[in-house]
Formats: sequence, C-alpha cells, structure tokens
Amino acid sequence: MTAFTIGVDLGGTNLRIAAVAPDGTFLERIHLDTEVKEGRERVVADMCDAVGEIEQRLAGAQMMGIGIGVPGIINLANGMIRQSPNLPGWSGFPVRDDIERRLRTPVILENDANAAALGEKWVGAGREVSGLCMLTVGTGIGGGLILNGRIWHGMDGMAGELGHMTIDPNGALCGCGNLGCIEAYAAAGAITRMATAAIRVGRSPGLAREAEELGELTAEIVYIKAKQGDIVAHEIFEMVGRSLGVGLANLINIFNLPLYVVGGGVARGWDAFAPSMMAEVSKRSLVARSTPTRIVPSALGAEAGLLGAAYLPLMQKEGQHG
Amino acid sequence: MTAFTIGVDLGGTNLRIAAVAPDGTFLERIHLDTEVKEGRERVVADMCDAVGEIEQRLAGAQMMGIGIGVPGIINLANGMIRQSPNLPGWSGFPVRDDIERRLRTPVILENDANAAALGEKWVGAGREVSGLCMLTVGTGIGGGLILNGRIWHGMDGMAGELGHMTIDPNGALCGCGNLGCIEAYAAAGAITRMATAAIRVGRSPGLAREAEELGELTAEIVYIKAKQGDIVAHEIFEMVGRSLGVGLANLINIFNLPLYVVGGGVARGWDAFAPSMMAEVSKRSLVARSTPTRIVPSALGAEAGLLGAAYLPLMQKEGQHG
Repeated sequence: MTAFTIGVDLGGTNLRIAAVAPDGTFLERIHLDTEVKEGRERVVADMCDAVGEIEQRLAGAQMMGIGIGVPGIINLANGMIRQSPNLPGWSGFPVRDDIERRLRTPVILENDANAAALGEKWVGAGREVSGLCMLTVGTGIGGGLILNGRIWHGMDGMAGELGHMTIDPNGALCGCGNLGCIEAYAAAGAITRMATAAIRVGRSPGLAREAEELGELTAEIVYIKAKQGDIVAHEIFEMVGRSLGVGLANLINIFNLPLYVVGGGVARGWDAFAPSMMAEVSKRSLVARSTPTRIVPSALGAEAGLLGAAYLPLMQKEGQHG
Repeated sequence: MTAFTIGVDLGGTNLRIAAVAPDGTFLERIHLDTEVKEGRERVVADMCDAVGEIEQRLAGAQMMGIGIGVPGIINLANGMIRQSPNLPGWSGFPVRDDIERRLRTPVILENDANAAALGEKWVGAGREVSGLCMLTVGTGIGGGLILNGRIWHGMDGMAGELGHMTIDPNGALCGCGNLGCIEAYAAAGAITRMATAAIRVGRSPGLAREAEELGELTAEIVYIKAKQGDIVAHEIFEMVGRSLGVGLANLINIFNLPLYVVGGGVARGWDAFAPSMMAEVSKRSLVARSTPTRIVPSALGAEAGLLGAAYLPLMQKEGQHG
C-alpha cells in the first residue's frame, strides 16, 4: 500500500473519518460524535486530530488529499458553507482554508448528498454507469446527480435539491415552508409525523401501544409494525413509496439516466415502500416503461457519503471536479 | 458568403426549410404544408425538393450539412423515429439514411424541442449561458436541456420529457394517460379544455359568446378574453402560470441553471401567465430565491426549432453532438 485519501463525513451527529485506498477499500477509520454544541473550533480540532492520528497509523504511505462531505450548501469557489441547518454558526467561515492550513494538505468540500452519489458511482451501485441520480432519504431528503461521470453542481453549487420537488401543490407542509415537497411525504420526519397523526385520531392502536411502550416513535418502529402487518403503518410506507415514485418518475422523464439510487436511513425500509414506488414510476413515466431504467437501493448504505468524500481528491486529480 | 447549413423544421402541419449562415442569419427559406396524409414518401420528397431548390439559389456556396427537427422521439444511433404521434407511419423507417442517400449530404435528426432549446442557446435567449432548460408550450409541452453547451439526450435520447412531469398526483387526465402532468394544465389543449368546461357549466357567458360567434375556441381566444378582463379566462391563465411555476421551481431545484426559457405558441400569452408563474417559482424554490436565476420567454419564437436544426451540423463539427 503506497497511497491513500482521507474522507470525512461531517454530519450533525456523527463525525466519521477514514483512510481509503485508491481502489475504494477502507484502510483506517475513526468514528466520533460531532460536538456541535461545543462549537465549530472544537469540531474542526477533533477532525484534524483524527486525520493526524490516521496519518500516523499509515506513516510512510502517500496521502493524496482530503475530501469532506458536509450537510449543507457549499460555496465551491471559496470553500465556505453557505447554509447548513445542522451546523449552526458555520456559514461564512472559511472551512476549507482553515483545515488546509491546519493540515497542510489540499481539502475539497462537497455537499453530503453529492458525496454519497459520487460514492455509489465510484464503488457502489453505479460502478458500471456514467450517470446516476441519487435520493438520500433520511431525516430530510437530499439529492445528488452524476452526469457524464461528474457531480452536477449547477451554476452556484445548489443543484440536486431533489427533496424539495413539489409533488402535490396543495399538499403537506414541508420544513422549508413550501407545500407538498417529496420530503414532506417520504423522509423519516414525514413517516413519524404521519404515524403521530394516525395515533392522535385513534386510527392505529398498534402504533400507539408501541410508541407508549418504547417511549418514542421512530421511522424504524413504523417500519417494523408495517412488516408485522399493521395496516396504518403499511399505508404510511405505501405513501412513502408513491411519493418517491412520483419524484422518481419526474426525474426519469427529465434525465433518462440508466440508474436511480435510493439511499439514506429510510432506504433500509426498501421492501416496505418499493412495490408502491415501482408501480407509481411505471404509471407515470413513459421513459421508464420504454427504457432499461434501474431503480435500486444504495449499495454502500451509511458508507456512501464517506467513500464519496474520500474519492473527491482522486476525482480532482482526474480533472473531474468542478 | 461562402458557407451555410440547412435547417428543417418538420412539423405535423408545417414543413419549413431554411439556409442559415454560420452566424445564424437566414439566407433562404421555403415554407410548405406537411402533406402528412399523402404519406411519408411525399413529405420526404417535398423536403428534398425544397433543399435542392435552396442549394440552387445558393450555388457556389459550401453546404455544411442538414439538421432536421422532428416532433417525436429519435433513435440517435440509427437515425430513425421511434415514436411520433404527429407523423403516423414514420416509426421504424430509416429517415436519416434515406434523406442522406437522396441528398448526398450528412443529415442529423433531432427532437424538435431539443432543437428549439439549441436554437435559443445559439442565437436566442441563451447566447450568454452555457446551459439552459426550455419548455415549449404549444398543443402539448416539450422540453429541451442544454448542459455544458450540449443537448442532454440521456441514455436513449428520451431525456427532456418535461411536459409529463407530474405536478398534481390526483390531477387532470393527460393525453399520455397519466394524471396531473404539467401538459394537462398549461398546454394550449389544456387551456381550451378548461375554457370549454367553464362554458359547459355556464361559468363564462363571455367565452361562450366568443366561441359561438367565431365558431371555435382556441387558446388565443381565451388569451384575448383574459386581457379584456374576462374573469374565467384570467383564472385559466393563472392556472397555466401556476402550473408552469411548479414545474419550473422543480427544474430550478434540480438543475440550478442560469436560464429557463418558455417557448411555443402559448408563450405569446406571457403577460397573462408570467405573474402567477413567477410567484409560484419564488414560493417553491429556495434555489430560485437565492441565485440569479432568469426565466424568460423565447427570443426566437417560432424560429427557435428551425435555427436549432440548422445549428446541428455546426455543433457536430465542434464535436458537440451526441
């Protein structure tokens, strides 16, 4: 082993750092909590310490660069975070330059959903294609587009806001203030909101019992109940599937790409929502019906963003970034 | 003048052929009816005769190639039409090879909406940008995407089916069989359908009178009544605007392009639908609100497709097609 890159997945909760070989295999990993409350300085210091630790473990090998996936909108030109609800106080701070100075290594920042899409393209579900579209369905919904092997950033790095596609103009209120975004129907937050509403009106004694016993209600609990045959939980996952299906049908009609990947935590409930999702896509997209379009769950799961971040320095070497 | 290309806009009604200089100015033009009922052979013969006539008029100048815009889905690899409701009997016929053989010149086929988007990029509203998204709103709604200066075809040439984006999952029936496509709310056909429905239930005596006097009801008549202050006609154009606005907000969130162009016959009613369209975009797209995104009417009007077709051979020379 003679060379490696470092990927960082800087989430609002978890801070994961890994050294990855040029073939995509993990060499070293460090998982930390993101001490968001302690402030930016502390998080950056933790990250840099972990990178230093990994470099020591791999002493002698060449470090090719650092890629960092961040949950927010990046200003690609100056390496700052424009906007990040999960990292309060970070916008306007020169993240990239600060980390480059501390570590004396080139750093590339990228939006976390774009990084996940890139990871799937590199060593995941999209290895065989030159383009793919990925929806990361977690607490919210993010999106990443790989066109002709590159991340599609748009003119300001704001492309791929797929979670805020309107799929029902008078529909449910989304966290963004708009009505009827996919995120308001298919994200983990929407799943618990729908379940809570069903419990409140007495429609689902099963979910109510479960929520009371466990002291909480998560998308995962709703999924487990759906698999156990709870009708309301099942309906909720059908709504997730139909909503993702409308969004995917639109994306397929727009892009005619060979591959669409569904990732993020909610994708673990694939078997509960995929049937209604696929039916909706087929109903709404002539392009899907007449071309060999594939829709698959993420192959890398929670590692997609970390691996994609690690690929960023390699991609730049190939002249593919930007 | 030493060189020119030939553009052909092969519509279901009009067959337009033009010689265009490399700077985008028209040199010669011939407009014919498309004799669809007389069959494919007749239409192709008319087209080839017109091309021959134009070549004679420009004898001595170098003809650089022929681009043809066709209302349908093109198989780029073999130059056939896959599917075209407006050109029945043309699918499976080797259009490109047949015309190349007759004229002994390279021929490039392209979807008409893609050609229109390319025309706007070349010498229209998009001269200053490297990417744009165009909606051609006529009888139906077509779409064309220019990304990094090139037409985005997708893997099978079916990309850009923007008219069949679902914007209301339980909405109006579209001609494609799906519910709630933009086309079902904003195309000329939708405008007359909504007006007819209003007349039928007695909601619009003004439109009813107009339709009876003129013996027909067109989108243009509805537009004129809207401008004259007819409330129902005005509501219909507001619906057109809101529907285009939802679709454009989605496209802006996806692409983050600098420019979105609305063309086709309905774009002539810009002043009647643009206010509600712009309001909807602003409401539904954070990307539109925080970036210098422009939405403009087509600069080339009915010539966009013809000019884009003429540009195809030049684009291929620059290695930009495919």
